[in-house]
Amino acid sequence: MLRTETVRKILSWYEGETPGLKSNLSRLLMHGRLAGTGRVVILPVDQGFEHGPARSFAPNPAAYDPHYLYELAIESGVSGYAAPLGLLEQGADTFAGEVPLILKLNSGNSLVKTQDQALTGTVEDALRLGCVGVGFTIYPGADASYGMIEELREITLQAKSRGLMTVVWSYPRGGNVSKAGETAADIIAYAAHMAALLGATIIKVKLPTDVVDLADAKSTYEKNAIALATGAERVQHVMQASFAGKRLVVFSGGAAKNREELLSEVQSIRDGGGNGSIIGRNSFQRPKAEALELLKQVMDIYA
Amino acid sequence: MLRTETVRKILSWYEGETPGLKSNLSRLLMHGRLAGTGRVVILPVDQGFEHGPARSFAPNPAAYDPHYLYELAIESGVSGYAAPLGLLEQGADTFAGEVPLILKLNSGNSLVKTQDQALTGTVEDALRLGCVGVGFTIYPGADASYGMIEELREITLQAKSRGLMTVVWSYPRGGNVSKAGETAADIIAYAAHMAALLGATIIKVKLPTDVVDLADAKSTYEKNAIALATGAERVQHVMQASFAGKRLVVFSGGAAKNREELLSEVQSIRDGGGNGSIIGRNSFQRPKAEALELLKQVMDIYA
Amino acid sequence: MLRTETVRKILSWYEGETPGLKSNLSRLLMHGRLAGTGRVVILPVDQGFEHGPARSFAPNPAAYDPHYLYELAIESGVSGYAAPLGLLEQGADTFAGEVPLILKLNSGNSLVKTQDQALTGTVEDALRLGCVGVGFTIYPGADASYGMIEELREITLQAKSRGLMTVVWSYPRGGNVSKAGETAADIIAYAAHMAALLGATIIKVKLPTDVVDLADAKSTYEKNAIALATGAERVQHVMQASFAGKRLVVFSGGAAKNREELLSEVQSIRDGGGNGSIIGRNSFQRPKAEALELLKQVMDIYA
Amino acid sequence: MLRTETVRKILSWYEGETPGLKSNLSRLLMHGRLAGTGRVVILPVDQGFEHGPARSFAPNPAAYDPHYLYELAIESGVSGYAAPLGLLEQGADTFAGEVPLILKLNSGNSLVKTQDQALTGTVEDALRLGCVGVGFTIYPGADASYGMIEELREITLQAKSRGLMTVVWSYPRGGNVSKAGETAADIIAYAAHMAALLGATIIKVKLPTDVVDLADAKSTYEKNAIALATGAERVQHVMQASFAGKRLVVFSGGAAKNREELLSEVQSIRDGGGNGSIIGRNSFQRPKAEALELLKQVMDIYA
Amino acid sequence: MLRTETVRKILSWYEGETPGLKSNLSRLLMHGRLAGTGRVVILPVDQGFEHGPARSFAPNPAAYDPHYLYELAIESGVSGYAAPLGLLEQGADTFAGEVPLILKLNSGNSLVKTQDQALTGTVEDALRLGCVGVGFTIYPGADASYGMIEELREITLQAKSRGLMTVVWSYPRGGNVSKAGETAADIIAYAAHMAALLGATIIKVKLPTDVVDLADAKSTYEKNAIALATGAERVQHVMQASFAGKRLVVFSGGAAKNREELLSEVQSIRDGGGNGSIIGRNSFQRPKAEALELLKQVMDIYA
Repeated sequence: MLRTETVRKILSWYEGETPGLKSNLSRLLMHGRLAGTGRVVILPVDQGFEHGPARSFAPNPAAYDPHYLYELAIESGVSGYAAPLGLLEQGADTFAGEVPLILKLNSGNSLVKTQDQALTGTVEDALRLGCVGVGFTIYPGADASYGMIEELREITLQAKSRGLMTVVWSYPRGGNVSKAGETAADIIAYAAHMAALLGATIIKVKLPTDVVDLADAKSTYEKNAIALATGAERVQHVMQASFAGKRLVVFSGGAAKNREELLSEVQSIRDGGGNGSIIGRNSFQRPKAEALELLKQVMDIYA
Repeated sequence: MLRTETVRKILSWYEGETPGLKSNLSRLLMHGRLAGTGRVVILPVDQGFEHGPARSFAPNPAAYDPHYLYELAIESGVSGYAAPLGLLEQGADTFAGEVPLILKLNSGNSLVKTQDQALTGTVEDALRLGCVGVGFTIYPGADASYGMIEELREITLQAKSRGLMTVVWSYPRGGNVSKAGETAADIIAYAAHMAALLGATIIKVKLPTDVVDLADAKSTYEKNAIALATGAERVQHVMQASFAGKRLVVFSGGAAKNREELLSEVQSIRDGGGNGSIIGRNSFQRPKAEALELLKQVMDIYA
Repeated sequence: MLRTETVRKILSWYEGETPGLKSNLSRLLMHGRLAGTGRVVILPVDQGFEHGPARSFAPNPAAYDPHYLYELAIESGVSGYAAPLGLLEQGADTFAGEVPLILKLNSGNSLVKTQDQALTGTVEDALRLGCVGVGFTIYPGADASYGMIEELREITLQAKSRGLMTVVWSYPRGGNVSKAGETAADIIAYAAHMAALLGATIIKVKLPTDVVDLADAKSTYEKNAIALATGAERVQHVMQASFAGKRLVVFSGGAAKNREELLSEVQSIRDGGGNGSIIGRNSFQRPKAEALELLKQVMDIYA
Repeated sequence: MLRTETVRKILSWYEGETPGLKSNLSRLLMHGRLAGTGRVVILPVDQGFEHGPARSFAPNPAAYDPHYLYELAIESGVSGYAAPLGLLEQGADTFAGEVPLILKLNSGNSLVKTQDQALTGTVEDALRLGCVGVGFTIYPGADASYGMIEELREITLQAKSRGLMTVVWSYPRGGNVSKAGETAADIIAYAAHMAALLGATIIKVKLPTDVVDLADAKSTYEKNAIALATGAERVQHVMQASFAGKRLVVFSGGAAKNREELLSEVQSIRDGGGNGSIIGRNSFQRPKAEALELLKQVMDIYA
Repeated sequence: MLRTETVRKILSWYEGETPGLKSNLSRLLMHGRLAGTGRVVILPVDQGFEHGPARSFAPNPAAYDPHYLYELAIESGVSGYAAPLGLLEQGADTFAGEVPLILKLNSGNSLVKTQDQALTGTVEDALRLGCVGVGFTIYPGADASYGMIEELREITLQAKSRGLMTVVWSYPRGGNVSKAGETAADIIAYAAHMAALLGATIIKVKLPTDVVDLADAKSTYEKNAIALATGAERVQHVMQASFAGKRLVVFSGGAAKNREELLSEVQSIRDGGGNGSIIGRNSFQRPKAEALELLKQVMDIYA
C-alpha cells in the first residue's frame, strides 16, 4: 500500500526531525487496519507492572503469556504494541517485523507510595528489538515530575538522533492537581501541551472530563467560552493545545468498561479530531474473540 | 546593513568571549527593525509551559499554532524569538534562518508547587536548530535556587565554548523575598547583578517597582539617596548593577495590559538606558494586526 | 499483509541475530511486489560513484535527479533501494518510509588505480536516514582486501547491535584471480561463502560463468563432478556455498543488456534457487516506462 | 531583507538536513550583494598555505595582513570568506558577525611532493569562531584520496550534527587522471558528483575545459552527444551531475588573469546555471580599489 | 612593573584567544631583562634529545645538571626556558615560578633516520609543571610532515582551550626542499607563514640566507623585487609573511659560533623587526660567566 496524502501531511508536521524518525512514524501509520487513515489504535501492556499480574491478567489468563499479547496485536491489526522490556523480549524474535513495537522505558508499580517511575529499558534495547519508538511516562505535578522530565530530555536526545519516535504518556497528578483534576479538561490539555513542548512525537493522555481544575485557569475558560460540554469538544480542545492539531494525540480509555461506553468514547475522540486510542485492559482482559471483535468495532469507527 | 558603531561598542564589552558568541550576539543585534540600534525586542513564548495552553492562547486562538508564533516574530521584525524545544522544532525547518532563535533550556509549570524548573532541552538541540543562544531561568531565593544556578553553570560552560549566548531569566522568589519584593527595585537590581556574575550574555528581569524589600538594604538605599522615584530611575539603577551598563538587560512586561501602560513602561526602559523589552503575552494574546501595530510602536520608541 | 510461511522460514535461518535485524530483514522481504515470496529485487545506484555520472545517467538523463531514483524504486515495487550517502539524503525526507533503504557505506571510483574503496558513510547515518541495513563491498583477492574485510568487521559489529542488516557486495579481483576468474563459478561460490562467513545478512555476487579459475580447485570440481553447465546449476552451486541456501543471495546483472538476455538470466537465478536480483543499470538507464515494464517482467518470474 | 522564494527553494533541496545547517546556509545566501539571488561569490584565501606567502601576497603586499582580507570580504559584499585557522583567528573578534565564515579544515603546501593535505583545524574551532561551515579538499584519483574521503566522512558527521555546512573542494589529480584531465569536462562532472554523493552542502570545482579524459567515458559522451562546446554547456553538464542542479556548485577561476577573461568565465557560469564563483587570487592580488571594482562587476553579472 | 603599551599592542593581535592564553603570553613578555619591550630571548635545551648528551653538554659539563640550566635561565634574565619533559621536571619544583616555562611536546633524536619527531609530553604535563606554553616542531616538506601538522592541530586545540600558548618550531626539510633551501629566504618565510596559519602564538624559524629555493617562487621574488640582500631585509620579509608582523617570531642561531657573528645576527633580527632570539648552544655550551655576559649583550641590543 502506498503512503496516503493524509500520512504525507502528518509527516510534514514533524519538520526538522530526521528521515529515520519519519520512516518509523510512517511504519506505524501505514500498518494494520487503520493504515493510511492518519488514525492509530495502540495496544499497551504495562498494567502488569503498574497494577500487578493478577489484577491485569486474571480476568483472561491467556494474557499471562507474552506470546498471546503479540498475537492479539497482530491478529487484531492494531497499529502498534507498547510494553516494557521483558514483555517485548518474550516474542520479539518469534514475531519479528509483524507489528510496530514501542518499548516503554519507564514503569511504576503499586508497591511504592511515591508518584514516580523507574527507568526499566534503554534506547539501545529499542534498537536491538527493532522498535519504531520508545515510550515514557511523566507525572506533571508530582514531586518527582521535574526529575522525570529531565530523564525524558535525555531519552529524547538519544532516541531522535537514532531515528526513534518518542511516545509520551502525560499523566498529571500530585502538586496542584486534585484527584478529579487528573482528568479535568484544563489539566489534560495542559498535559498534552507540555508533552508537545518536550518534543513528543506522539502524545498519550486520558480522555478529559468537563471539569476545570486549576483555580487560575477558570476565568480563562469562562471568559473565552471554551466549549467543554461534549466529549468531542473536550477532545477538540486537547488537540488545539497540541500545536493546533499538529501533533498526534491518542487517548486512553482506562479501566475495563462495557462495549457501549467504550465505543461512545471512541466516537467522541474521532469527532473531536483525536488521532486514536490506546486500549489495554479493554482488550487483553476480554476473551480473545471478544477482544478482536471489539477492536474491530473501534477501528471501524476510526477508519 | 553594516555593523554600526553602537553594536561594535556593545560587542567590545563581551571581551574574552569567543568570536562565535560575538557573532551570534551580533546576529541578534543586527536583525529586524531595531538592527544596529543596540536595543532589542524579543518575543518569548514559554507561557504555554508556565501557565498552560488555554491561559496563554485562548485570548487569540491562532497562537495555538507554532507557525503563527514564528510568523509573528518574523513579520513584526523583532530581534529574536525564544521558546522551549517543541515550539522551536515546529517551524525551525520551515523558517530556517529567518529570525534569531533562543532555545529555552528549562521550564516550570503551574501543576507543581515547588519553585523550580526542569531541564527540557540541551545545548546540542540549540546547535541542531540553528539558535544564536540558549535561555535559562533562575529563581534567586528559592529553595532550589542553588541547584538551578549549578545547572546554569554547566550549560554556560557548554554553550559558550560552542559560540552560543546565554540569556538568563533572573526571577527572585522565595527565601528572604516577600511577594512584593519579587519586583522591588533592590531585589531586581540584585537579580540582574547575580545574572551578570554568572556570565549571562543577556539578562532578563522584571520591571522594578519603587519598593526596597530587603531589610539589610534599606539603610544603604537611604544613606546613598539612590533615586528610585521614576521608572526610568529604577531602570537606570538596574543597569548600573549590570556592570555599569556593560551587560545587555531586557525587561519583561508581565501580564497583558493596555497599550498606554505598556508604551509608558517602554519609555521608562528607554529613558533609563535599558536595552529593550521581552514581550510575550502583550503580543501573542492580541489579534495579529493589533500585535504588529503594538510591537511597531514599541520598537519606534526604542529606535 | 501478514508475514508468510516462506518469510518466517527465512528469518529462522538468522538464528542468534537480534529481533531488530530480523524486523528489518522482514521489512525488506514483506515490501513491494515480491512481498512474502522470499525473493527480492533491489535497485542499487552506486554507479555514479563507480563509473562517473555521465556513463551512469546520460542514457536516461532523468536519472541525474535523485528523486527520480526514489520514484523508480517506489513505483516499480522493488524490495529495496541501495545507494551512497548523498543520493539517499536527497529524498530520504520526501519519501520517508516508502521503500526500504540500504546505505552503501563504502565506494570506489574510476579515477583511482588501486582496487579498494573508501568509507563514505556511517552506521549512524543509516539510523538517521531510517535504513533497514547497510551495504559494503569487499574485493577478495585484492591487495587491500584484508583491510576491507577488517572495516566490514567493525561495521558489522556496529550495525547488528543496532538492528541493521549487512548486505555484502563480494567481488573477487586481483591476487590469484584472473580477469576471467572474476566471474568464474568456483570464485563466485568462494566469494559468497566468505561473505556468509563474515556474517552477511544478504550476499551480493555476480552471476557466475562455467569457468573454474583457481588451479587448486579444478581437480575438486572434476573429481566430484560438480555440475556447472547451466546457469541454474551454477546458481545452485553458489547457493550451496552460502550455508546450504540458508543465506539470502542476490545476483547482479552488470552492464545494460537486452531484455531477453536479462530475463533469461533471471530465470536461471530462480531455477537455481537464488533469492533474487540487484538491477541497476538495466533499470535506471532505460526510459522510465520501459524500466517499469522490465522490472515487472523480472518480478513476475520470481513471484 | 526577508528570505526570497529562490532561497527558500534552494533550502528545500537540502531535505533531511538539520534546521541548524539550513540556517547557516540561509545566512550565506542572504548575505552581501547577492543576497537572495541564489548565487554566491566566495573569497577564499588558502593560497598562502598552498603556494607560500610571497607568491600569494607580494603582488599586493597589503594582503599580508589578515585584517585586509576581512575588509576585502566585507567591503566587497561577497557572500562569504573561507580560510585556514590562523587567518580566520586574526580578525574573527574584530569583525565578528560581519561576514559568513568558512573554516578550511585541511591544507596542503608546496614543500611536500605527495598529493595529500593535512588536517589543520577542527569542527570545534569552527563553532568557536562563529563559522557557518567548514571547508575540505579531496583529490579524487590521488593515492591518498581514499584516506582524504574518509577524513571528510568523519568531519561531515561532526559538522552536520552541529548545524555546520560542508563545502567540498573536489580537485581530481593523480591515478587515472592526466594533467589535462584535471580540468576535463568529464572529470570535473565526476568530481562534482562524488562531492554530492559525499553529502557536500556546497561543491567547489574548477571551470571545465572541453576535454574528455577518461578512456572509458569517451564513447558515452559521443553516443549521447553531450554538448561541451561552450563554457556554459560545460557548466550545465557539471550542474546536471550535481543531483540535477539540486546542489550548490561554485567554480574557481584559478590563477590571476585579465578582467575580460574572468568576466567571460563568470558569464559562462551564470549562463550554464552555476551557482557562483570562488575568487581568490583574482581579487586579493589586485590593489583594493581594483579588486572591489572587479568583484562588483562579477556580482553584477550574477545579480 | 605595569604592562607597557608595546605589550598591550602585541596582546591585541591575538584577538579571539582566551584571556588565559593572553595572560601567559603577558607573563613571558613581562619577565626578565626584556620585560615590556615586546622582544624576547628564550633559552631552549632540547639538543640533548636531538644530538645526544656529550655533543650538547661536554663543552660545559656543568650543563649536564638540569638545575644548572634553570639557574642559567633565571640568572641571565631571559624571557623563558623551553625543554622536554625530564629536563623541566628536574627543577620545576625547586624553581617554581622563577622563570616562564615552555614544555617541548615532541622531540627527535640522532639515532633515527626518518625526518620526524616523537610526542614526548602532554598538555596535561605542561599544566602540571606550571608552564606558560607548549612547544612543537614541524618539518614542512618531510614525508611525515602532514602527520606532524595533524598532531599539532590536536595539541593546539587542547592547549588553547586551557590557556596555554603554542610555540611552533617550523623547520622545513625533505620533499621539494634542497639542503641549502632549509634556510632559504623563501622557504623560511613560507615556514613562518604556515606556523601562523596553524595558529601558533610564537613562531620559531632559522635565520634565513639570501637563497630563493623553490623553482615556482623565483619569478615572484624577481618580479616583485623583494629585497633579500641584508639579514635585516630577510628578517623583515619573514615578519611580513607572519601576518604582516602580527605574530611573534623568534630566530634561532644554530650551532655555537663566535660572539661577533652572533651579535651581528641579533642586530639583523632587531633591525628587521624580529621579536627576538632563541639561544641554546651559544649559551649553555659556554662557561656560565661567559654565557651570562653574552646573553646580556644580546639583550642589550634588543632592549
